[in-house]
Parts: sequence; structure tokens; C-alpha cells
Amino acid sequence: MSPQEFLQALRQTLGAEAVLSGDAVPARYHTDWSGTPPVAPLALVRPRSTEDVSATLRLCHQHRVPVVPQGGLTGLAGAAVPSADCVALSLERMPAIEAIDARSATMTVQAGATLQAVQEAAVDAGLAFGVDLGARGSCQIGGNVATNAGGNGVLQHGMMREQVLGLEVVLADGTVLPMLRPMLKNNTGYDLKQFFIGAEGTLGVITRVLLRLRPLPQAKATALLALPGFDQALAVLQRMQGRFGNSVAAFELMWDNFVQASVQWQQLQAPLAERHPLLALIDVDGKDEASLRESVEAALGDAMEAGEVADAVIAQSQTQAKSLWKLREAPAELNTQMHPPVNFDVSLPQAEIGRFAAAIQAAFDARWPGHHTLFFGHVGDGNLHVSTDGATVGGACEAVEAELYRVVGAFHGSVSAEHGIGLHKKPFLALSRTPQELAAMRAIKAALDPLGLMNPGKVF
Amino acid sequence: MSPQEFLQALRQTLGAEAVLSGDAVPARYHTDWSGTPPVAPLALVRPRSTEDVSATLRLCHQHRVPVVPQGGLTGLAGAAVPSADCVALSLERMPAIEAIDARSATMTVQAGATLQAVQEAAVDAGLAFGVDLGARGSCQIGGNVATNAGGNGVLQHGMMREQVLGLEVVLADGTVLPMLRPMLKNNTGYDLKQFFIGAEGTLGVITRVLLRLRPLPQAKATALLALPGFDQALAVLQRMQGRFGNSVAAFELMWDNFVQASVQWQQLQAPLAERHPLLALIDVDGKDEASLRESVEAALGDAMEAGEVADAVIAQSQTQAKSLWKLREAPAELNTQMHPPVNFDVSLPQAEIGRFAAAIQAAFDARWPGHHTLFFGHVGDGNLHVSTDGATVGGACEAVEAELYRVVGAFHGSVSAEHGIGLHKKPFLALSRTPQELAAMRAIKAALDPLGLMNPGKVF
Repeated sequence: MSPQEFLQALRQTLGAEAVLSGDAVPARYHTDWSGTPPVAPLALVRPRSTEDVSATLRLCHQHRVPVVPQGGLTGLAGAAVPSADCVALSLERMPAIEAIDARSATMTVQAGATLQAVQEAAVDAGLAFGVDLGARGSCQIGGNVATNAGGNGVLQHGMMREQVLGLEVVLADGTVLPMLRPMLKNNTGYDLKQFFIGAEGTLGVITRVLLRLRPLPQAKATALLALPGFDQALAVLQRMQGRFGNSVAAFELMWDNFVQASVQWQQLQAPLAERHPLLALIDVDGKDEASLRESVEAALGDAMEAGEVADAVIAQSQTQAKSLWKLREAPAELNTQMHPPVNFDVSLPQAEIGRFAAAIQAAFDARWPGHHTLFFGHVGDGNLHVSTDGATVGGACEAVEAELYRVVGAFHGSVSAEHGIGLHKKPFLALSRTPQELAAMRAIKAALDPLGLMNPGKVF
Repeated sequence: MSPQEFLQALRQTLGAEAVLSGDAVPARYHTDWSGTPPVAPLALVRPRSTEDVSATLRLCHQHRVPVVPQGGLTGLAGAAVPSADCVALSLERMPAIEAIDARSATMTVQAGATLQAVQEAAVDAGLAFGVDLGARGSCQIGGNVATNAGGNGVLQHGMMREQVLGLEVVLADGTVLPMLRPMLKNNTGYDLKQFFIGAEGTLGVITRVLLRLRPLPQAKATALLALPGFDQALAVLQRMQGRFGNSVAAFELMWDNFVQASVQWQQLQAPLAERHPLLALIDVDGKDEASLRESVEAALGDAMEAGEVADAVIAQSQTQAKSLWKLREAPAELNTQMHPPVNFDVSLPQAEIGRFAAAIQAAFDARWPGHHTLFFGHVGDGNLHVSTDGATVGGACEAVEAELYRVVGAFHGSVSAEHGIGLHKKPFLALSRTPQELAAMRAIKAALDPLGLMNPGKVF
């Protein structure tokens, strides 16, 4: 069967408007936020239901056509970038928030719902969703699950995996697995849904998600802290967790180079009178705005006395809290401000992060004087992000990667904390996994997708 | 090669004292707490290291000998019961607590460490372990992982899966997978360790576990509540969670028939002057014993005024708290007090549990007048346990099972919340999983254990 006949069959099954091909596929489906060179797929399919997804996969399976699932295309590892011979399968026409059960604190959504829509629906029901990240307005919940997204809420609620109570998944041959049972505890055979979380679309297409919701904090205090150094940052985090326990909802660290870039790119006011080696954003949940702010202030007062904190701003309103958090949202500008950005998302034993950042800075300084490199991350979870402007290293992006991952290996870190492997990190996967582990992964891939049609060339 | 030659090869590789066969295998390795008829294995192997386990599995693979992994043999579904042609592989000589890192709140242990040893080591380091269950003194952490154990701490910390940061696993052919990296976030390919959690030893043998520890609560308040009915139990749980959030550490519900049996079997004093339809044990964590007890007392006062609680005892000391909790430990007596017990571990949408228990009681009353059936469970997680004395239903244990699972199906529940499938629940697995899900599980089993040697006949 020719490609034309295959497209014809797709259109017959799904309706003509669900299938675009050739020049009719808008350029935005050709790549994602990873900066991977764009590729036009054979076709773009935009199903409206699980049945549509199943029918599409059945046809692709029959005709041996690869499938690349696409969510909000905000991934930073290239996992959703199409190949020229594939069907790009966008879930964007399946954005429904289907059900919320406030009593059991669960929500059922289609995979194409944006993270922000999920967050807002949870708040409307008097609850909260546990994952938050900068791309919230564009990224989709199915992509968040497929990449086991992290973000700013991991410290308190864990990664995406810990928010997922159930999944509906379509396998490569069109088989639907309805793993959407609402029970918190269900030890009936293998917990199949776990296999698809973080698999980056290589084992199946996620079509529905049963999410666990969290209590909506009645009050929140936000503070921006200026820190003399990394060890002080850890000390103040430990102090705050000792005092507020699991109510410490976020602890984001920003090195000065990141802060300066953020202020400039987003045209913000400088948040503090002076520059400091590190700034931290901290959120603490509580019951009552005024008394919470008071206890946070007291704790930070103790931290200042102990020399852990050099200066601090405590937000006096939610508007001010939002404007402090704006500082952390610079990563959305990386693609336009760097030419191109070389992005890293590594994890390390927490205590090593300061030394690691200094080692990278020194190694890059020696090799690429004048390089522009930003350090920031979810330090409470041991997760550091690094972005280097490719233009400032003379375009030596691959050498920058090789150098940084060499140091990750030396520190026994992970080459991907939360962004996944996709296309970009395939060469470095073996730094974080043994050949035996990779062989076991491949065996599972072959078991669930024997023809190798699901997102081929990604991860492995 | 004859069985004798195979045993010879095992002894040569592992040392004679690590291998017992025939009558030399003590009877305690012939079955577990599930009441499954005992079976003597071909051999009992007791390795002292991961290398020993790997060597054993390599030999078994070479000679096509099935392997049944054994932990503390406290399972209630028969997953660790040997077959006559198998090597029973006991992890009991691998009980080491290898490392504790208090700063990152992690612990590395061999699979044969008892749950209680893990709990005590955590407390010695100023931390706590998130899982607790009645068999703590005998059950082993490897078995807890293999069955994704639940227990009394799920409400606050989740099931065993959420305590596992890393695993070392030996596959059927002897391959060692060293998935023990200490990072909280590590999205490098499939999260392989998830596949082995809850797989009941059918995919590999767990040899080491990297555990996540939790902050040690500085104070704990324990109360026993008398409740007029199930809806009031849910109301008081919601009230306490609204007031104390995630600090509500346990909420265990006991129906009066359970309470009476527990008092009698353990020769306890009646905990309250009168009998009540339901008793609940509640634990709340806090910072300061006296002020915590005061706020719990105030909250329970409100609950009494609202008619949710009929009577309550608040423990005035940890000794008294322990003695209140003793009431919940009757399940350890089931095997000696019932002839035999027919045990159930189901989960249901939380709000349905009261109606479900009443429906079972009525159905059994109609068919087996005079039956003795106990209801109790982790109601905060939607998990109910039921135990019927086989002698009181004229030995019609299978009919009791069929009847109860029929009602579970009608309530859209799960046939196993936390005990797993093992041998006992195989006939009922299809009530909780579709044929497509079971096919996907079998495909994964075949991928990781192509010869079908790992705990064959269990789960599927």
C-alpha cells in the first residue's frame, strides 16, 4: 500500500478533518521546545476520542507506519519530534476535564488537557494539583505523565508518577488498556500503569488519566532569600523543613547568573538592592495567612542570625508572591534568548550540587572564556538545571554536553532528572544505566511493541 | 542431569551448608501464613550475598529448575509456597542494614532484613520508616517490596512503592540489575525498579533495597473512638484530616465482631465500658505531646458534639497508646483461632465500604447462619479486610470466596488491595483486570523470564 493509500484509509476511518498531510501540517508540529531541527511528518492525526486513537494505531500497525505521540510540544529532550515517515499523533483535541470527585480527591481527564486547566479545575473544586512547571499553559497532562514530569511541587508531592492513580493507554496494535480504577490500593497483578509513566511514548499512547488531588492550602507564604553560598542554602532548607515539615511546598535555588538573565530577559525590577551569590524562592503552606507569615518571618530571622540568610523579602500579598516567582520563569525565554541553548537537567546527591556547579563553571571558564551559563533548579530534590548559550561557546554544543556529562559521571549523578531521554540524551544514557538495565528495558519494549512502531528512535 | 547432580552443582557453587534438600528442609519453608497446604521443595537455598543469588539463578536457569523466592513467609496469598520441583530461595541470611544516610533520609538494606529491623534502624538514626504492619517482626523488606505491602501507614506515606528509591534485582538468568542510585529524580529510560515492586517474585529476586525514610514525629497522639456508624467514621476522618492534614498518621476501623474476637483471643480488657458498632484507632503526629493531645481532644470534643463520636479514649502515654493499638493486632491470631480463616483484602470506593460490609454480612447470614466473620481495615485508604471462620460455614471456603468476590464485582472493587494475588486469588484476578491487561502482563513476564522459571504458577 502506498503512503497515499494509507492516508486515504486514515481519512476514511477518522474523517478527513482529523488527518493533515504534506504542507497542510503546520510547522509547529515539526519540532518541540528542545531546539531539534524540524521534520515534517507523513501525516498529523488529531483524534477526538480513545476510539479514534485506537483506530489510528490499528491502521498504523497494519501498515507498519511509526507513530510519534505529541502533547503540548514543550519537551526539552526531543521525544515528540516527528520523523518523515511517521504519523504525528496530537492529543490536543482531547482536552476534556471529564470528572472531579472532591470527596475522594480525584479527577479524570483526557490526555490533551493542559496542566494549567487541570490546576484550575482542581482549585475550582476546592483542591490542588501536585505538579507545577513553567510550561503549564501549553504542556499537556498526557505528556506530563509520559515524561514523569517534575517541576516545582516535587518536594511536597513527588513527581507526576505520584499523582497518577490510573491510566488509559492504547498499545501499538490498537489494544486499549483501561487502567482507570479509582482505588488507592489495588495489588492485582503487575501495576501496569507504572510501565507507561516516564516511557516517553515508546510503549503506548496515554489517552486518559485518573489523577490524585491534594488539599488546597488555606494560606501560603512566599519568600525570596539571598544566600551567601550553597551550604547556607541547604542549612536554611533543613531549618525550614525542621520547623514546617511537609508544608515547605517549594525551594528553588537560582545562581546569580540566572537571576541577572531573568531580570534582563523579562524586564523585571531587581528583586533586592544588592546582588548575591544565590537567591532562593521558598513557599510554605499553612492555615492562616497572617500567622503563617509571622512564623516564616520568625524562622527567617533565626536563619539570618545564624548567618544562613543575608537578606530576605517576604511577600505581603499573593500578587507580590507571584511577582517574586516571576523571577523563576526565565526558562520559558531560553529558546529566544540563547542561540541555541544547551540545556541540562541533572540530578546529584543533594549535598554535592554546589561543588558540582562550581566545577562546571570552572571547566567551562577554562575551555570557553566568555561562555554564558545559567544555574538554577529544584535543589530540594537534588535536581539542577544548567543552560549554556551555544553562541558563547562558538557553537560547540556537543563538546559542552560531553564536558558536562563527564563531570556528572564523576559525581555519580543522573543525566536526566526530569526531562527524560528523548533524542538528545540517548548518547549519554549509558552514563546512568548499565548494559544489563538497558537490555531489560529493550526486552520490555519488544514485548509491548514487537514491531517497534511506538516513537521509534527515542530513548534507546 | 538428574536432580541429585543439580543439587551437587548447587552445593559445589554455594557451599554445602547453603543448600538443604529432602527431609533436611524444615517444615516452616513448606508454606506461609496463607494456610496453603505445605509442599516440600526440591531444595532450600539460603544465599549470603547477591553473588550467591545470581549463581543460584544461573544454575537453575541452566537446568530449567523453577525458583520460588521466600521472605518472612507471612504472605496471605500463598505467593511464597514452594512447588515440589523448585528451589525455594530464602533471603533470611541477607538481613544486613548496610547504610543509613540521615542527611538525605535514605537507608540501604539487604532484602532479608525484617521490617522491624528497618523501623528500629530508622528510629536510631532519628528518622522513621513509612510502612508498618502486624507481621513486622517476621516479614522481610524484600517480601514487602515484592508484594507492594500496605499496612497502617499508607494514609500518610503511601504503600511500599512510595518508600522505594532503588532496588537491586537478580533476573531469572542470573543477571544483576543494580538500580540503587540515590537520586530522588532519575528519568533515564524506563523506571525499571517499578516493574519488580508488587510482581510477587515472578520477574526476579529482590536482593537489596534503597529506602526513603521520613521525619520522625516529635510527638504522637493516639485515640480510640467509638462510632455509631460508618458514615460517622468517614465524617470524623474528614474532620481530623481537615484539622491536622497529612499529620493524621493512621485511621483504622474495627467492626464490633472484630473487637470482640480481638479482646477474647488476646485476653485484653474491654477498651470501653459499652459495645459500639465500630471502633476507630487514630494516630496524629505533632511537635509537642501535651499541646497535640490537647488539640486532638478539642477536635474530638467537636466531633462528639456533632454526633460523630459516641465515646473516646485518648492515650495519656505511649504505653497506653500501645495497649490501645494491641486491639488491632488480632489478625496475627487468625490462623490459630479460625479453622481455617478465609481471609479477604479488598478495596472499594471509600464511601461504599459501610454498605459493602453490611451487604456481605447479610448475604452470609442468609446462607450460613451462625457464621463468624470479622470486618476491619485501613478505611482511610478504601481498604477493608474480612475474615470468615471456615468451620462456621461448614468448610464451604470456596463458596464464601465466590460469594464475597461476586459482591466486590458488583461494587466495582478490587479483589486484592494489598495482599497480592499469589495462588489464592488467581481464580478471581479477572474480576479486577481485563483480558487485555492480563495479556500485557503475560507479555512482560515472558520478556523478563522467557523460560517461566520465576515463581511459576503465581499471579497468572
